[in-house]
Amino acid sequence: MAYELYYWPTIQGRGEFVRLALEAAGARYRDVAREGGKGAGVAEMLRLMNGRNAARPPFAPPFLRSGRLLIGQTANILQFLGPRHGLAPKDEGGRIWTHQLQLTMADFLVEIHDTHHPVSGNLYFEEQKKEARRRSADFLKTRAPKFLGYFERVLSRNARTDRYLVGAALTYADLSMFQIISGLCYAFPRAMAKTARAYRRLFALRARVQERPRICAYLASPRRVPFSNEGIFRHYSELDGRA
Amino acid sequence: MAYELYYWPTIQGRGEFVRLALEAAGARYRDVAREGGKGAGVAEMLRLMNGRNAARPPFAPPFLRSGRLLIGQTANILQFLGPRHGLAPKDEGGRIWTHQLQLTMADFLVEIHDTHHPVSGNLYFEEQKKEARRRSADFLKTRAPKFLGYFERVLSRNARTDRYLVGAALTYADLSMFQIISGLCYAFPRAMAKTARAYRRLFALRARVQERPRICAYLASPRRVPFSNEGIFRHYSELDGRA
Repeated sequence: MAYELYYWPTIQGRGEFVRLALEAAGARYRDVAREGGKGAGVAEMLRLMNGRNAARPPFAPPFLRSGRLLIGQTANILQFLGPRHGLAPKDEGGRIWTHQLQLTMADFLVEIHDTHHPVSGNLYFEEQKKEARRRSADFLKTRAPKFLGYFERVLSRNARTDRYLVGAALTYADLSMFQIISGLCYAFPRAMAKTARAYRRLFALRARVQERPRICAYLASPRRVPFSNEGIFRHYSELDGRA
Repeated sequence: MAYELYYWPTIQGRGEFVRLALEAAGARYRDVAREGGKGAGVAEMLRLMNGRNAARPPFAPPFLRSGRLLIGQTANILQFLGPRHGLAPKDEGGRIWTHQLQLTMADFLVEIHDTHHPVSGNLYFEEQKKEARRRSADFLKTRAPKFLGYFERVLSRNARTDRYLVGAALTYADLSMFQIISGLCYAFPRAMAKTARAYRRLFALRARVQERPRICAYLASPRRVPFSNEGIFRHYSELDGRA
């Protein structure tokens, strides 16, 4: 039976982390909100969240239906999919560690988003541009190096290989890291260009994931929503540090 | 063998969510950074994070040692402890749902923290007071109602009882919800006083958790770090809406 993924149809957002795992696994899935008549899939998604009969309503997309289970929260979904599709280690310690890395990426992602929306997601960027400049400057100076330095260290400390974050094979954490590095390069091309040497393992990981046949095919397909200034990673030149 | 909890010794912070679970379970644990000679525990904590030998270093406290496992990320720790101490359902769907709620609380917690630090955790509150006023106003108007309304709905939709978030018994998610409601009442006493009726199930849950013998004893003990303006929940009168 195919999985059903529910996510906003026009942005990558957090749904993309789930899509990448499903695609890398070659799993059958429906991307429900992007299907069929305009808005029908979105209406179904909102019904699952807000309907009176929803016993365990998700707070927000993405969520995944697998048989009778309806699973929300990106990291929770990936933790569910990982062992089922060979995208997580089999031992308990390895599974916990993979999830831990994913949760740290989730924290990073909030900070990435808030560079352009430090006051409120309900206001336009233009209404919080001044605050966004302050927050982005701090992000590029202190927060991005802290997170990226950490993940670079995780790669270098992996006793099996520095080609993957966990153990000797691809996990969903690597797929998510690909998306984060790609997104940061979209949002902050100037700042990221300067860091390629400091984070060479992370950049190599990104390239390695991108070259995997299934991921490569996915990225070239219409199933991949392009980056845009509606998503988590947005490019505003004035937030991208000095030239 | 006793668990070892590692967290900053002078604040509740995210460590408190783990402490509450350990205390409710009556589990044996050491709160390492609060023990013994001043600073020795903190030094040990930093060594585990930053030491050259750390194969799987946590990004930040809290983290928990259980035998050979070193587990970071609050929700990850709780997910580990839950089934071992009767603080999570036994079935897969129930465990996934409990974790999903915990992750949504983690998202809420970031937004609570950022009311007083919308620009950077590296700057003092006084250096971002203007931004904090804007962000807090939006938080109280749109974000807190969205999250609290959601969790109130989760209680009301629980087919077993509206006394707990999941199933018919206490889980770690209830303990975390107790901490969040308590913290919001500390940080935003005026704004929260107005909401007691709208979120009566959440307030009742908070009281119910607080009255459990082990939690009651814990809260009265020196093991409970008090709320303060160094933690996630901070009280600044100017951020607390209108009188």
